[in-house]
Amino acid sequence: MWKGRGMMDFTFHMPVRIISGEGCIRQSGRLLREFGKRCLIMTGMSSAKASGALDDVLETLEEAGVDATVFPEITANPLLSQCQTAAYTAEICRAEFIIGIGGGSVMDAAKAAAWLATNNCNDGERLMEGSLRRPPLPLVLVGITAGTGSEVSAVSVLTMDADKRKRSVFHQNLYAKLAFADPRYTFSIPRRQTVSTALDAFAHAVEGWFAPSCGDVITAFGEKAFPLIADGLDWLARHDGLPGPDMRTALYYGSLWAGMVLNATGTAYPHPLGYILTEEYDIPHGMACAVFLPGFLDRAERHMPERAERLYALCGGRDIVFGTLEKLVSYDVRMTREQIEGYLPRWEGVKNFERTPGGFAPEEAAALFRSLFLN
Amino acid sequence: MWKGRGMMDFTFHMPVRIISGEGCIRQSGRLLREFGKRCLIMTGMSSAKASGALDDVLETLEEAGVDATVFPEITANPLLSQCQTAAYTAEICRAEFIIGIGGGSVMDAAKAAAWLATNNCNDGERLMEGSLRRPPLPLVLVGITAGTGSEVSAVSVLTMDADKRKRSVFHQNLYAKLAFADPRYTFSIPRRQTVSTALDAFAHAVEGWFAPSCGDVITAFGEKAFPLIADGLDWLARHDGLPGPDMRTALYYGSLWAGMVLNATGTAYPHPLGYILTEEYDIPHGMACAVFLPGFLDRAERHMPERAERLYALCGGRDIVFGTLEKLVSYDVRMTREQIEGYLPRWEGVKNFERTPGGFAPEEAAALFRSLFLN
Repeated sequence: MWKGRGMMDFTFHMPVRIISGEGCIRQSGRLLREFGKRCLIMTGMSSAKASGALDDVLETLEEAGVDATVFPEITANPLLSQCQTAAYTAEICRAEFIIGIGGGSVMDAAKAAAWLATNNCNDGERLMEGSLRRPPLPLVLVGITAGTGSEVSAVSVLTMDADKRKRSVFHQNLYAKLAFADPRYTFSIPRRQTVSTALDAFAHAVEGWFAPSCGDVITAFGEKAFPLIADGLDWLARHDGLPGPDMRTALYYGSLWAGMVLNATGTAYPHPLGYILTEEYDIPHGMACAVFLPGFLDRAERHMPERAERLYALCGGRDIVFGTLEKLVSYDVRMTREQIEGYLPRWEGVKNFERTPGGFAPEEAAALFRSLFLN
Repeated sequence: MWKGRGMMDFTFHMPVRIISGEGCIRQSGRLLREFGKRCLIMTGMSSAKASGALDDVLETLEEAGVDATVFPEITANPLLSQCQTAAYTAEICRAEFIIGIGGGSVMDAAKAAAWLATNNCNDGERLMEGSLRRPPLPLVLVGITAGTGSEVSAVSVLTMDADKRKRSVFHQNLYAKLAFADPRYTFSIPRRQTVSTALDAFAHAVEGWFAPSCGDVITAFGEKAFPLIADGLDWLARHDGLPGPDMRTALYYGSLWAGMVLNATGTAYPHPLGYILTEEYDIPHGMACAVFLPGFLDRAERHMPERAERLYALCGGRDIVFGTLEKLVSYDVRMTREQIEGYLPRWEGVKNFERTPGGFAPEEAAALFRSLFLN
């Protein structure tokens, strides 16, 4: 059931220390050294290097006298088993802390590995339940995409090896100790990923904005997020190229504000529905969630009209929001009636549905899927 | 030297978990129990009881099976030695955590006691240097005044036993693990203290607003703080009585936003100058700082006119700000020329002066004192 909260409330928790600005890592050797003498660096295949972040981290660690082992094997939508392998590696090289450099996939994997490394690395189920006993290795995150907001959240979304389904865990022990926010690392992200990650950030802010736990503090964060992200999306919808440094910077900081919203509120139905499009149709995460945003906004308008109006005003108007989504969101997904029926059990008791204005039943999700994807 | 920062920066750290709203403590027994089986409660002489907070805490602890010892001896402008005595008491009753219930004095003392208790309680000098070795006992704070913002800061201001001067320490180990923000506890604060604490909150937001480290995140917090606090001050300037629950609530949450500003930026010259009026003329802390706000704002206008204008707009206009301060701030302080000269050594190298727009030299402080207080 949706339950409102007093608009002046001051409930808040986000313990990550964020250091931002151009060159912030190169100035922070001493801070990193405080975590220990040996670290494991987790990255994707190439983006951490291409962004410049990996070199900045390696140079800084060397100057600070910290030994680093690089584990460059994290893929998009990382498997739990990848995190377990990284955790073993951390154990073997006696890493005292872990640095994750990448987008949401790498950062989420680094959160998992840091907690597994101090416990039984095999114990993936306990990780996903948030019930591992010992506290994690200290974790440092370096974001290089403007979308996930994983830097500022205690959420990790991983793909289960057995059924290839995404599953998320939220736990205090998944917060980074330190996050570096240097927007320059996002400047080299290609167009397609720039669009998808910006849509992801927008989905975080939108879904959180209407959540029952979105009180005054988190509303203030949303008020910062929307103009920054909506400007960038509007530009991306009107141009074919890549945004310049100022807009990249705005998009990145917008994604952090949106991440702080998401972290406090959780997401609504677009996220779990989007997981299916990513798992089965390989649609990038942000794009997959955005598929469901127009319908979500329609529903939010009906149940929380004032709040919807405030959101549109922050974005430059309702037409801009819907026009931008129409231009940027594209997908080719076809499903059979039976296939859609098959998802129903998966949607039983999903908390994200409860966080949706007016509530959202599994049968409504099926109807939505039929209207969007039926052959 | 004053040094600006990019307006979109995202530097931020405030790890306290804040739980807010009416009755929030009574629902949090399980959370408190996680800190241990025995705790020390630090309070002032009577206000924690009068506010209703002490009873709520005691009932909640009893239900949760936590033994509590109450140490009700913290005075306004607490001495370092009081914190040491509290720390000894925590040791003797084997407290596993400390709960501070009160205004800034009690909360600042509780921060100090929690850190001393796990180290050598005698080592006050190391506390004030922030160099105690072992991590502190977990600390829970319950604010009952709408001013200090100590709930959300890593600052403790204590009075030194030897010279009765105030000294402040800022350290990560002074953050509470948990803070309860229930505005009802502020409803019974008498008029004089309501005015002074509201002025304190206003001073935090004003002094922080112009600080070099006030980037985009902290600016957003200031934007929340100013309207809430200015409304309350305006009401207090126009009426003789006590504000109602809504305005009390606004003032309390405003003080928390302002506390988050202060925590990130530090204060400028009004705070250290105010300390002298409190130490030697017994002027309540908030009132003492506010004595210097009109001059500070004049100076800020000259050096950062756009930022000053934005502040005034958030408060309902420049006239409201200055008119309110004129009505609410009163003091009877007379000094001799020699006395003022005597403060000069104390003002050498004060960091708060550097955080002042345009800088602020000790000789300027002396000139200001002469203009305000010379016999």
